[in-house]
Amino acid sequence: MLTSDLVGYCAASLTTAAFIPQAWMTWRFKRAEGVSLSMYVIFIAGILMWMTYGILLQAWPVIIANIVTLVLASFILAMKLIYK
Amino acid sequence: MLTSDLVGYCAASLTTAAFIPQAWMTWRFKRAEGVSLSMYVIFIAGILMWMTYGILLQAWPVIIANIVTLVLASFILAMKLIYK
Repeated sequence: MLTSDLVGYCAASLTTAAFIPQAWMTWRFKRAEGVSLSMYVIFIAGILMWMTYGILLQAWPVIIANIVTLVLASFILAMKLIYK
Repeated sequence: MLTSDLVGYCAASLTTAAFIPQAWMTWRFKRAEGVSLSMYVIFIAGILMWMTYGILLQAWPVIIANIVTLVLASFILAMKLIYK
């Protein structure tokens, strides 16, 4: 595997995993007033575009990383809407 | 320009711009207790890896998008540390 591929996989894993503690914190404390609704709406739109990009290029790592991020970001957005 | 390139630029613009409302909200209300410290530490580590990936591939759109995201995410992290 190329060094750049390895760095790319590490990067994708980190920027995806980053949403786990936010999802956990929002769920744990049942509070989301510090989380920006606009951020998650725009972010999810961006993730759907990244998935489209991955599908157009048949790039499975891009598709899979963005499916996981989509699930986590959608969960945070749902918590924001439920606990507002 | 290829359709996939266009979709990629839209995706990068959205996932970068998404952090503007969160940065603004945290700054405006001087509160960050709903924002996860771990999320931003892991996310910034991921962004630094994405920048390394962009540099290795000499991919300027990747480098530029991640510089902007790094600035916004670092600002949110700084607010989190200041207002904790």
